[in-house]
Amino acid sequence: MDKHIYFFGADQTEGDASMKQKLGGKGANLAEMAKMGFPVPPGFTIETVLCDVYFRNGRKWPEGLEKELEDNIKKLEKATGKTLGNAQNPLLLSVRSGAAASMPGMMDTILNIGLNDDTTAALAAKIDNKRFPYDAYRRLIMMLGDVVMGVDRELFEEILTEAKKKQGVKFDSDLSADILKSMVEKYKALFKTKTGKEFPQNPREQLRLAVTAVFDSWNNPRAVTYRQLNSIRDLLGTAVNVQAMVFGNRNENSGSGVGFTRDPSTGENRFFAEYLFNAQGEDVVAGVRTPLRIDELKNRSPGIYQQLNEIREKLEKRYRDMQDIEFTVEDGKLYMLQTRSGKRTIFSHIRIAVDMVEAGLVSKEEAVLRIPPNELAKLFSPELDPKALKKAVESSLGRGLNASPGGASGKAVFSAEEAQRMVAAKPGEKVLLCRVETSPEDIGGMAVAQGVLTTRGGMTSHAAVVARGMGVPCVSGASEVTIDYAGKVLRSGKLSVKEGEWISINGFDGMIFKGKIDVIPSEIIRVLDGQMKAEDSRIYRDYAKFMGWADGFRRLKVRTNADKPADARRAMQFGAEGIGLCRTEHMFFDNINPFRRLILVSEEVKRLRGEIAALASSKNPEDERRAERIREELAHPESEYNRALAELLPFQRADFEGLFTALNGKPANIRTLDPPLHEFLPKDMAGQEEMAKELNVDVKYVREKVESLSEANPMLGHRGCRLGLIYPEVHEMQVRAIMEAAVNVKRKGIEVMPEIMIPLVGIAKELKISRERTVETADKVLAEARMTMKDIPYKVGTMIEVPRAAVTADEIAEFAEFFSFGTNDLTQMGCGFSRDDAGKFLDDYVKMGIYEEDPFKVLDTKGIGKLMKMTIELGRKAKPGLKIGICGEHGGEPQSVMFCHGAGLDYVSCSPYRVPVARLAAAQAALKDKAK
Amino acid sequence: MDKHIYFFGADQTEGDASMKQKLGGKGANLAEMAKMGFPVPPGFTIETVLCDVYFRNGRKWPEGLEKELEDNIKKLEKATGKTLGNAQNPLLLSVRSGAAASMPGMMDTILNIGLNDDTTAALAAKIDNKRFPYDAYRRLIMMLGDVVMGVDRELFEEILTEAKKKQGVKFDSDLSADILKSMVEKYKALFKTKTGKEFPQNPREQLRLAVTAVFDSWNNPRAVTYRQLNSIRDLLGTAVNVQAMVFGNRNENSGSGVGFTRDPSTGENRFFAEYLFNAQGEDVVAGVRTPLRIDELKNRSPGIYQQLNEIREKLEKRYRDMQDIEFTVEDGKLYMLQTRSGKRTIFSHIRIAVDMVEAGLVSKEEAVLRIPPNELAKLFSPELDPKALKKAVESSLGRGLNASPGGASGKAVFSAEEAQRMVAAKPGEKVLLCRVETSPEDIGGMAVAQGVLTTRGGMTSHAAVVARGMGVPCVSGASEVTIDYAGKVLRSGKLSVKEGEWISINGFDGMIFKGKIDVIPSEIIRVLDGQMKAEDSRIYRDYAKFMGWADGFRRLKVRTNADKPADARRAMQFGAEGIGLCRTEHMFFDNINPFRRLILVSEEVKRLRGEIAALASSKNPEDERRAERIREELAHPESEYNRALAELLPFQRADFEGLFTALNGKPANIRTLDPPLHEFLPKDMAGQEEMAKELNVDVKYVREKVESLSEANPMLGHRGCRLGLIYPEVHEMQVRAIMEAAVNVKRKGIEVMPEIMIPLVGIAKELKISRERTVETADKVLAEARMTMKDIPYKVGTMIEVPRAAVTADEIAEFAEFFSFGTNDLTQMGCGFSRDDAGKFLDDYVKMGIYEEDPFKVLDTKGIGKLMKMTIELGRKAKPGLKIGICGEHGGEPQSVMFCHGAGLDYVSCSPYRVPVARLAAAQAALKDKAK
Repeated sequence: MDKHIYFFGADQTEGDASMKQKLGGKGANLAEMAKMGFPVPPGFTIETVLCDVYFRNGRKWPEGLEKELEDNIKKLEKATGKTLGNAQNPLLLSVRSGAAASMPGMMDTILNIGLNDDTTAALAAKIDNKRFPYDAYRRLIMMLGDVVMGVDRELFEEILTEAKKKQGVKFDSDLSADILKSMVEKYKALFKTKTGKEFPQNPREQLRLAVTAVFDSWNNPRAVTYRQLNSIRDLLGTAVNVQAMVFGNRNENSGSGVGFTRDPSTGENRFFAEYLFNAQGEDVVAGVRTPLRIDELKNRSPGIYQQLNEIREKLEKRYRDMQDIEFTVEDGKLYMLQTRSGKRTIFSHIRIAVDMVEAGLVSKEEAVLRIPPNELAKLFSPELDPKALKKAVESSLGRGLNASPGGASGKAVFSAEEAQRMVAAKPGEKVLLCRVETSPEDIGGMAVAQGVLTTRGGMTSHAAVVARGMGVPCVSGASEVTIDYAGKVLRSGKLSVKEGEWISINGFDGMIFKGKIDVIPSEIIRVLDGQMKAEDSRIYRDYAKFMGWADGFRRLKVRTNADKPADARRAMQFGAEGIGLCRTEHMFFDNINPFRRLILVSEEVKRLRGEIAALASSKNPEDERRAERIREELAHPESEYNRALAELLPFQRADFEGLFTALNGKPANIRTLDPPLHEFLPKDMAGQEEMAKELNVDVKYVREKVESLSEANPMLGHRGCRLGLIYPEVHEMQVRAIMEAAVNVKRKGIEVMPEIMIPLVGIAKELKISRERTVETADKVLAEARMTMKDIPYKVGTMIEVPRAAVTADEIAEFAEFFSFGTNDLTQMGCGFSRDDAGKFLDDYVKMGIYEEDPFKVLDTKGIGKLMKMTIELGRKAKPGLKIGICGEHGGEPQSVMFCHGAGLDYVSCSPYRVPVARLAAAQAALKDKAK
Repeated sequence: MDKHIYFFGADQTEGDASMKQKLGGKGANLAEMAKMGFPVPPGFTIETVLCDVYFRNGRKWPEGLEKELEDNIKKLEKATGKTLGNAQNPLLLSVRSGAAASMPGMMDTILNIGLNDDTTAALAAKIDNKRFPYDAYRRLIMMLGDVVMGVDRELFEEILTEAKKKQGVKFDSDLSADILKSMVEKYKALFKTKTGKEFPQNPREQLRLAVTAVFDSWNNPRAVTYRQLNSIRDLLGTAVNVQAMVFGNRNENSGSGVGFTRDPSTGENRFFAEYLFNAQGEDVVAGVRTPLRIDELKNRSPGIYQQLNEIREKLEKRYRDMQDIEFTVEDGKLYMLQTRSGKRTIFSHIRIAVDMVEAGLVSKEEAVLRIPPNELAKLFSPELDPKALKKAVESSLGRGLNASPGGASGKAVFSAEEAQRMVAAKPGEKVLLCRVETSPEDIGGMAVAQGVLTTRGGMTSHAAVVARGMGVPCVSGASEVTIDYAGKVLRSGKLSVKEGEWISINGFDGMIFKGKIDVIPSEIIRVLDGQMKAEDSRIYRDYAKFMGWADGFRRLKVRTNADKPADARRAMQFGAEGIGLCRTEHMFFDNINPFRRLILVSEEVKRLRGEIAALASSKNPEDERRAERIREELAHPESEYNRALAELLPFQRADFEGLFTALNGKPANIRTLDPPLHEFLPKDMAGQEEMAKELNVDVKYVREKVESLSEANPMLGHRGCRLGLIYPEVHEMQVRAIMEAAVNVKRKGIEVMPEIMIPLVGIAKELKISRERTVETADKVLAEARMTMKDIPYKVGTMIEVPRAAVTADEIAEFAEFFSFGTNDLTQMGCGFSRDDAGKFLDDYVKMGIYEEDPFKVLDTKGIGKLMKMTIELGRKAKPGLKIGICGEHGGEPQSVMFCHGAGLDYVSCSPYRVPVARLAAAQAALKDKAK
């Protein structure tokens, strides 16, 4: 039989750290530490593949395992000088799981194997601390009973509770040896009653049961769920670590410690650990007593401290990373029990990476590859003051989804209008927008709010997506909270918050609090905004250095989705190389009145145009005259339609001027109007009445239009290029505004590179006509300004977001100078589910493994990605070198960026606060690609 | 220079009927008749390509045309013995357009070329009828003025009106020669005033202008619109026919006739023409005087009749088709002016086809290829009694779209419930459902109505699609009509129809009438329904014979979309070879109460399931017990959910039994529940209140559920297989109902072939899980019945309607025994527009040439078809021989059926009344394929 068990310790170590897949993280690291000569209690690891064989085998032990196990027990007995089951000198064992990926607490552990009536009694006779062996034995019975035989743990706890009551003590640790001894009998009796069998006295049988239990725990529901939730896939199973026990709670000369080789919070290079005398490791974690800081151990046990500190340094050199360690001192002797890469904040991550590169410990490539890109976003979010947070627990209003990171505190408002009104009335006023859910109409209110709270909607709801895009903290889907719009109050349990009262949210963890909590801005942001000097900020300097390294590796360009100059400036501070998507919707929302006037007459304009077309096939002179009259009417500059257009033009032009100025020569991809017209009209009665008053029209007329423009499926409605094709003047006005702005900014000596993007193209002719109209207007503006394409090298391209466009990309490429994937819509149409509605089943789908990830969060590379690859192949075949980017939410999601790199895209574009994430992900993609 | 002009007549004919593309229909047929030795006034045809060259040339005459024209004029002068411009014996010419496809009246014609001051005066001097030359000259001036020089025709008409007033006559024909002569002067003066030029006296210049005008008229707006509307593409341009004029109005020994070689209405083999003495052809058409039936000419001019009848027979033999002819007698001599394939009703079409095949005139292949498949549907629609119709004009309420053919008359009702109530109260009651638009809730009402009228929605609106599917006459989108639901009245102009008053619609032409109009059922339907014997129905026998020929040629199978036994039976009468799509929705609508109870608790059930999943990762025994309690609660047979399911099962089973029995061994493709749950809940307050009362729950609860189930984009919402995956019990109940029904019917000795179809699959795992659950239940039912797959060879497959499914069809094929394209949804998602909303732009899109046809009517072969081809290739690569069909509306549309044949589909499926259409289209596809 092949070798399946690997021994470690006592100079006989067979494994090492490189064998993580085979031995699991814990086993590989124990072997490594033993190999490095550190004091590790000896033991052995059953490799992961046997867990898989066990399950394939119908939950039976693989052939040969029994024998190999026995050989290793022998070896272990020899190494420790102890014997399993020997009453005089019993070998006691721990049996622990340990997969290649960390799954903390999800699988089973059994301690104290080797104890039985005989060994326990012998031990008790031998040592001073009589409590210790009985307590250990009691625990073994309970663990084997619960974990292996399925006896309800509660029943053991009842016996314990009763015993404490009887002795009149509060803590387990105060139980006397006698009581513990009698409890052992009660535990054994319970074991027998419930399982029908005596508690196994044979330590080998105990061990067999324990190993089986650890195998089984790989597929317990908790572990399966954990792997699903954490996207842990392609693992064979768990390894099983069998190890000689050491006891930090043996006496006062013993103890246990846990800690990190550097500060996990800040990354500072100092030993960061805690130690507790006469205790096991779990006691330190549980916080039964207050542990010592590791510095204090220096004085109390200078030898141990010295030894530990040396190990700490050697471990960092060996692993070239900050380590999370566990150790135990048994009767004055140090044992290392665990080492693994330490979890840390992004702040710590960055500092450690920079320090280690500068110390020559890791290469820049490795440092760049190590940091999870998504974490970067947290560098920029303001935080609720941690001190104030501790006091706020009692005012908790519950928890929602951590939809957009950052802390926020403000006066509760229940409508976007009220938010805007309050901030307008008192500059600097802090409001927090609380809504059941948000819609595009609320964007203005969201922009002025400190944070957004919604009671409905998931991580990809409108509120969540927009808030993340804006960098506004958001907690979404807080189902415990109810909002009473009419009563202007929010309730959760017994607490309530009225409009104007303070409320706070923590976008990092989804918590919601009544009352005001101080908010601390992110340090990097303060530097970027000039409120702090770079030289005073270690984190800023580390961040800048680190990102510089990352940029050196990437091939993909990173642009930003930005609609306003401030957003563009922020994104460029974050390293954006241009705008990948400027949505022009807000320009209409900002000038809603003329646009609403235009919308009110739009259908009539369309009808009249239809009439002209119909009259064209008539030969009746009456009809010809009528057509002529309509033509004149439509062209009349004082018509409602044309006046509205004329009113909108200067506003849009000014907006584009701001954007081009902010970009200072970088390219600006501008998408023409995309949402359906009804999105610009109020849906509620009150809003309609207000609009009617504002525009001085009959409210019935407004209502009629709202109704006639309403759509059954707005996602698949009259939007995108379909608007521009049916209302060419709106499109023309936008193109004119873009080009006139470009001319004006160029005249100031700033280069301008507009890329005009036509949305929602599904068929080549849509783009052909849109392009012709665009070029006609753009060239006219250039000619008016006596400029040419040399002055303003504008481009015309299209989004690829309709599946039909993807499969006919060769035809479409003929009329496009660039493609930009709108993967939000491409996913909606390609997968056939609307982002607004998919919440009803998509979570379950991911849990059921139908989709591996929510395809709105992580690009569905196997389906939507296939459409993208088709597009790229067809598009570049028709037009070699065609520039192709992506501007959906996926452009800032690391796994998706990885795909974009591999698929050969030229750039990704994402919201400003995701730009660093995308830069890092792009660098990692390039490095991983190179390593292939 | 190459030859571009083809002479005909006087034994010098250069063209023939085969040259239609080159010479246009008119020119080719004139040449053919001349070649056959029939009396054709000689002339020549300028070929179509020159029209194209003319436009490419910037509207200039191609080089060499002038010279070739002159040569042909010479030849024509020789052939006629007349000379252009010669006062003594002037040659007069007509100049007419004539493209390869018929475009009646869309392009220009100029007659009487060759008349000028001299020739007119000379002619007038020579003949008795002095009116004649001046009237002809006057018309020439007007035609050249209007058509060529753009002088407003109105101005000429004014002169005419004035002249009639002055002479005190009513008709043009009563104007005296003198008056006409003076009008000539006025016309010439007008011509000069408006054009700045004298009216051209040179006949060669007149001819030049006329030819140019005909070229130009190819691209006049009317002609362009006509070609768009009639899908006439790929033509080069119009030919120009220049021909010696003959005059049927020269004297009483002259005359003109038009007609058909067989009866265009019934197809009877008899000469069917009309003749008018002393008249031009247009006078016959205009109906100025009552013409003679051609039989009457037999007595009046037996020679002419004899000659005509011989020509009629020869023409049919030559063209092997019924002909539409025009002829003129000039001073006792017959001239043939036109022959072409005659338009006819479908009744006539069928009879002529059968007669000609049986007479050996055409082959069966040719007969099958000739009949437009779409026309077949009209064979089965009831009609408004044509006699009654004539009187109904004054009661016209306007015109909508002819959405579903047939005539209907009934009492107006404004709600589906009222329709059902009235029919239930008085069996045989005729109601006509009038709605603004219809929704799935109205299906019951539509089914009992004689016809459906909607004021909104296009040819593919819900009402239109469902009505066509049901074979119920429908007029949709009647925008002149308004419906006042509250007042229970319908208005159009000054007329109104109250509930209960009679209203009639004509689904053939979209007309709507107030009042009752008798309806005649289709003869074939009466035979099929046993109300008439086949031997008494010539049309039935011809139809059956013809369809038999068609079936002999086709490869594609034709199935039907049918939900109920009656529909299935009707479809099988029409030749369906099984059910291609049984929608199970109606089964839920028919048992709405238990299903609504189920829907009310469905979200709670989902929530509880989620809770179990969440509890699974907890180790707290409390949680484990709670999970167990929930599991028990969910499984309890007396829970609301399970009771509702148990109640639905027997109903569905009975429905399936009916269907299987009706199918009598033919395969039945059954789709599991597809629409989102909210479609089964009432949207309006009143409906919700009624539902609350019915189910004995609080109306607030109902409203809450309606709201929480509502979707932003229901098309892309929680529907299709997503329902079955989240609510597995509903799916299981349906599978059980299908299989139990199959077992019961099989036990009666009838074979059953259920094909269970999973809708809206987008990713292989959806189908994998759905399939596993389906097979598990199906096998369980079989085992309970002690049957096996040999007894009931059920299959499990999927619809392909999500683009993602199309591009990953290889993965999906692994779990499918068949594919069926749902091209309605595939078009919606692939093109990115919802059928309900696309009306706002799709018509314009077709007019703009963006899509060649409405892709919901005619399959978009270049885009959606590309996805289909990918699917077929991937699917069959993964699973060779995979059965693939189509069950969208396109399955009954001839062009789409053609594509399906070419793409290698196994079958098409369509609504019952489209089955014969699909059979014929499939036969034509096979024949055309063979001919390649």
